[in-house]
Amino acid sequence: MSRTRVHNFSISLDGFATGEGCSLDAPFGHAGDRLHHWMFAAPFGRELLSESAGSPSPASHAYAGGVGVDDAFARRYVVGVGTEIMGAGKFGPPGWHEDRDWRGWWGPNPPFHTPVFVLTHHPRPALEMEGGTTFYFVDASPTEALELARVAAGDLDVRIGGGATMLRDFLSAGLIDHMHVVQVPVLLGRGVRFWDGLEDLQNSYHVEMVSSPSGVTHLTFNRA
Amino acid sequence: MSRTRVHNFSISLDGFATGEGCSLDAPFGHAGDRLHHWMFAAPFGRELLSESAGSPSPASHAYAGGVGVDDAFARRYVVGVGTEIMGAGKFGPPGWHEDRDWRGWWGPNPPFHTPVFVLTHHPRPALEMEGGTTFYFVDASPTEALELARVAAGDLDVRIGGGATMLRDFLSAGLIDHMHVVQVPVLLGRGVRFWDGLEDLQNSYHVEMVSSPSGVTHLTFNRA
Repeated sequence: MSRTRVHNFSISLDGFATGEGCSLDAPFGHAGDRLHHWMFAAPFGRELLSESAGSPSPASHAYAGGVGVDDAFARRYVVGVGTEIMGAGKFGPPGWHEDRDWRGWWGPNPPFHTPVFVLTHHPRPALEMEGGTTFYFVDASPTEALELARVAAGDLDVRIGGGATMLRDFLSAGLIDHMHVVQVPVLLGRGVRFWDGLEDLQNSYHVEMVSSPSGVTHLTFNRA
Repeated sequence: MSRTRVHNFSISLDGFATGEGCSLDAPFGHAGDRLHHWMFAAPFGRELLSESAGSPSPASHAYAGGVGVDDAFARRYVVGVGTEIMGAGKFGPPGWHEDRDWRGWWGPNPPFHTPVFVLTHHPRPALEMEGGTTFYFVDASPTEALELARVAAGDLDVRIGGGATMLRDFLSAGLIDHMHVVQVPVLLGRGVRFWDGLEDLQNSYHVEMVSSPSGVTHLTFNRA
């Protein structure tokens, strides 16, 4: 059966997956781009930015990123993934469901290139984008959403895209096979905590940590 | 001037420095020995246990620890340290100040071998132990306690011993020069949080993380 995988899920040292005050202008609130800088500094992330801009992005090449460990982890994001499930909070700023024209943060060619199931209490018609991404809006439990996603993924794996709240729901329901978390050496102090309510999660997984020369630490959880 | 240093301060992945339900029988509450297993498994910790038992401790040799990275970090605990300041919560279980005979957790020969200042709202006479440790009980602010400790330390450094609450007070007051934190891959879910109220602490320090083959990750904060 296809596996459920989490990749490049970035948190602060104090365990926040996003900052406070998320809005259209600040998708991660006061965290800014600090949690994901490592990814966009790596070659994988620079390619993502170029692709989304439709041309090489000189600005993003200005800072040197982790070309080894970080890039090796980051690229696993796309390999063998047939679909993604994301929470409502990832698809848009608070209140996006009231904007009928909202099409996600990612422009006309989102970086998913697969069907994407958006969990929301406000379903709307499917949204077909360029490059193979189609957003499906479903009001479903984690288990129900995973059944849908597995059908769409065929033999491939299902990526669980976050944010923190939906990922915790999937973890609590025992629905995650592999999880890659990236710990970034900043203290956000406030925002949405990731680890809450997951006491003894390590008992169900093989956990490894490896630090990167870039300063971040990669954690992998593989179901025991 | 002598520096203030923190060593071997161990926390869970979700940022707890101790568990819930601390008592005489469970100094770290439901965390048990999970946060400090790495240290007692390393040669440095095994030597500590032997010294405290007055003889080699065969049981503690039964598990192999991190003889490289972990041991190198652990041994810095004693080097160049002239005194320690610890919080009341480290010296004994809740309510220890009501027990006039309480002499700390560590037996007749505690592993400090220097003057130790115990911060408490219930001062008592100094307590001279075997091996060079003397406990002084002082009702003082972090700054006042540090002045006392610096006199006692002479040219040597002052170790800030924790627990989490007093260490956060010292960090907030800008009184820590070097801090070594060890992240252990367990999720405690509850207890005393270490990182709270320290937003943007990284801006005042050079922060590095390095993972150890034992499974823990060592963090160092050096004042910028």
